[in-house]
Amino acid sequence: MAMVETISEQRCHGGMQGFYRHDSQACGGPMRFALYLPPQAAHRRCPVLYFLAGLTCTEETAAIKAGAQRLAAELGLALVMPDTSPRDTAYEGATGDWEFGEGAGFYLDATQAPWTSRFRMRSYVADELPALLAGRFAVDTTRAGVCGHSMGSHGALTLALAFPQRYRSVSAFAPIVAPSQVPWGHKAFARYLGDDRAAWVDYDACALVCRQPFPGTILIDQGEADRFLIEQLRPELFEQACAEAGQPLLLRRQAGYDHSYWFVSSFIDDHLRHHARALGLA
Amino acid sequence: MAMVETISEQRCHGGMQGFYRHDSQACGGPMRFALYLPPQAAHRRCPVLYFLAGLTCTEETAAIKAGAQRLAAELGLALVMPDTSPRDTAYEGATGDWEFGEGAGFYLDATQAPWTSRFRMRSYVADELPALLAGRFAVDTTRAGVCGHSMGSHGALTLALAFPQRYRSVSAFAPIVAPSQVPWGHKAFARYLGDDRAAWVDYDACALVCRQPFPGTILIDQGEADRFLIEQLRPELFEQACAEAGQPLLLRRQAGYDHSYWFVSSFIDDHLRHHARALGLA
Repeated sequence: MAMVETISEQRCHGGMQGFYRHDSQACGGPMRFALYLPPQAAHRRCPVLYFLAGLTCTEETAAIKAGAQRLAAELGLALVMPDTSPRDTAYEGATGDWEFGEGAGFYLDATQAPWTSRFRMRSYVADELPALLAGRFAVDTTRAGVCGHSMGSHGALTLALAFPQRYRSVSAFAPIVAPSQVPWGHKAFARYLGDDRAAWVDYDACALVCRQPFPGTILIDQGEADRFLIEQLRPELFEQACAEAGQPLLLRRQAGYDHSYWFVSSFIDDHLRHHARALGLA
Repeated sequence: MAMVETISEQRCHGGMQGFYRHDSQACGGPMRFALYLPPQAAHRRCPVLYFLAGLTCTEETAAIKAGAQRLAAELGLALVMPDTSPRDTAYEGATGDWEFGEGAGFYLDATQAPWTSRFRMRSYVADELPALLAGRFAVDTTRAGVCGHSMGSHGALTLALAFPQRYRSVSAFAPIVAPSQVPWGHKAFARYLGDDRAAWVDYDACALVCRQPFPGTILIDQGEADRFLIEQLRPELFEQACAEAGQPLLLRRQAGYDHSYWFVSSFIDDHLRHHARALGLA
């Protein structure tokens, strides 16, 4: 069994908020993640909700700011919050730009040098982390949902659409839905995946949903006062793609809300209940 | 009316999470505070709960980590979270020690030079801030409760016991209850208030409660895995003082919980409901 180092474990809402570090095979070095185990984990394996954070964030961001533990404890849902990229890679250009590199892994498996040897967040989140968790904690990773925020909800949507057999539910806060068509995606994908845009399709929610809809309603919350709405997020593109693909979508435009975790925390309970229903908890 | 500068205002749980800066007369310079206005504030003045943070904390700490906004929005309760001291005082010894000076104001009015001209947090929280809020925001500061964490719950207890006419309710997380008898208090009070311990009584909850009990039950949550429990917090001293004074006290010892905001956030809802009842909201 892989070694997992405990950074901290603290009682929270009757369960345990933990932070951990381990050597990742997918990412070729140490990775950190946060795990909230609800009180029910003392007695049985609990289903899992992955929360994928956005640009500049770490494994601490959602754990501290999303306010998800209270209802997760009530529902009996474990929360997994990975870091957003490998760290201390020492690659030139990996730091100093908040839109690319460390803190901006985009939940993909890079194919271009030097990124391909460390920036493999899709394999990490979809394969390595669930296996690690199942071997070490009281979680049932065969019952899993995935959600996220911004770049992290790009991760959630693309993972769920690419691997519908691994996730029973998916939801997103302020997602990047069409990275192939917006500046954040252009910049990151060209460097991680190369200039051949055929390779980008596997990481573009608008493209993926047309190939194969997700077997369940996708829940999205989007703040109308989000400063990235028009240039980077463009939810109307996903709305249109879902309509064409026959994908059930509940897109809620929330008046007055911005891109922050004040927005995420305001609606996190609705997302937890969405996942709990799909996971047989509510 | 005093000038209040808006640092940020962001929609949260249907209300508004704001951060503000103003020139404080009591503290002789700029002070910052956080204010959460629930949705009900759009239509009427809402009662106020002051949350006083502990050593090393700022006006951001409880706003980000306590998770109080969700239920405050439901109850119609405004949350006021001041900084824990004046900042950038340039006094020798005011920085570099987490137990004293900036970030460690102890919610008292210092009488010793140089501290007396800036470190006047009791006057700031009890007098200046309520007047400022009432003139600027949709809050009813005549209906107020006070709570806090650690040094901040020392502030909450001593303010409520010293000014029972200003606070209808009081509660505390992991409070310093007997600063005159513990190292944190010895260190801070000797420098802020001088060596004459007669002056310390006004800022010692155990001493104050014997002088005049609070007209209502005091709610305290204390984690049993708190590393400061035995040396600095000593809730048994307050338990004994309350018993002698005839002060109704609900002291809950919470197994497994430490001194962190994971602990605070786990029980914040119970505290909000305690205050809401006293403020006629529930």
